[in-house]
Amino acid sequence: MKNAAAIFKLSYGMYIISSIDGDKKNAQFANTAFQITAEPAVIAVSINKQNYTHELIEASKKVGISVLTEDATFEFIGKYGFRCGRDFDKLADAAVIEGSTGVPIVTDYACAYIEGEVIQSADLGTHTVFFVKVKDADVLSDGTPMSYDYYHNVIKGKAPKSAPTYHED
Amino acid sequence: MKNAAAIFKLSYGMYIISSIDGDKKNAQFANTAFQITAEPAVIAVSINKQNYTHELIEASKKVGISVLTEDATFEFIGKYGFRCGRDFDKLADAAVIEGSTGVPIVTDYACAYIEGEVIQSADLGTHTVFFVKVKDADVLSDGTPMSYDYYHNVIKGKAPKSAPTYHED
Repeated sequence: MKNAAAIFKLSYGMYIISSIDGDKKNAQFANTAFQITAEPAVIAVSINKQNYTHELIEASKKVGISVLTEDATFEFIGKYGFRCGRDFDKLADAAVIEGSTGVPIVTDYACAYIEGEVIQSADLGTHTVFFVKVKDADVLSDGTPMSYDYYHNVIKGKAPKSAPTYHED
Repeated sequence: MKNAAAIFKLSYGMYIISSIDGDKKNAQFANTAFQITAEPAVIAVSINKQNYTHELIEASKKVGISVLTEDATFEFIGKYGFRCGRDFDKLADAAVIEGSTGVPIVTDYACAYIEGEVIQSADLGTHTVFFVKVKDADVLSDGTPMSYDYYHNVIKGKAPKSAPTYHED
């Protein structure tokens, strides 16, 4: 390959993906949520198979997507990105609303949310791409959605080097 | 639905997707290209089934992805977004290189490209999501990748109202 760094030029947003299965619920950070079709509105979400949220989505088909804004902190994102919900209740001290589908939706640092149900999925080895038919959605604020590029260049730059989740990359 | 405008808060990049089948070749604008897995590197690309590029990708499995930069003009993007390659050779006056897979890659206003072959696809009604295993990639410049938000708020704002492709939305 001439220069694999080309792959890092693709653009992404910053999202919290949530799900629920009975009394089990969880939420995790993800950067891949994209609208695929307009009629009906379907969003693709890619989730690592090892994640607890993946297990809940597979079981219930329910998915919540919170769109993070540029004011989200490194610590907040780290909680959803680096800690596993199997042994830590990430939602305990979060601002959460219950969506129409029953899925918990994290509203901290979120300007919008989308919720829906999986109508189809694609197995890509380490990850599953879930195709989520939108059931409900709302705008929560006029905050600017955070891009992954902004997170990498601005938010990580502000992170204390002593933070347990600090990464040099 | 409480407010469907929530869906527009998702983030996207700006890409030219190209393909070739024998002596037929084409390229089109798309905003949905995102990495799904790292091992192996696989990129998902969503293409409308009515597009000529869709026909070529289905036939050859070859896909080129050019990452557009913020200096791309409204006219340039419009050529790939609003005109159909079945009756107009979009590549005739474009800067194009031939990738390792034989696919034509548009390098105008591009800071990077990725090329590969479809290993799997998902039928989502109006669109097909192609999962492209990366075969080669390169960085072409240090230009800033254009976000769809930048296109909508900055590039469209600069477009002459008399442009044939001008849209009020």
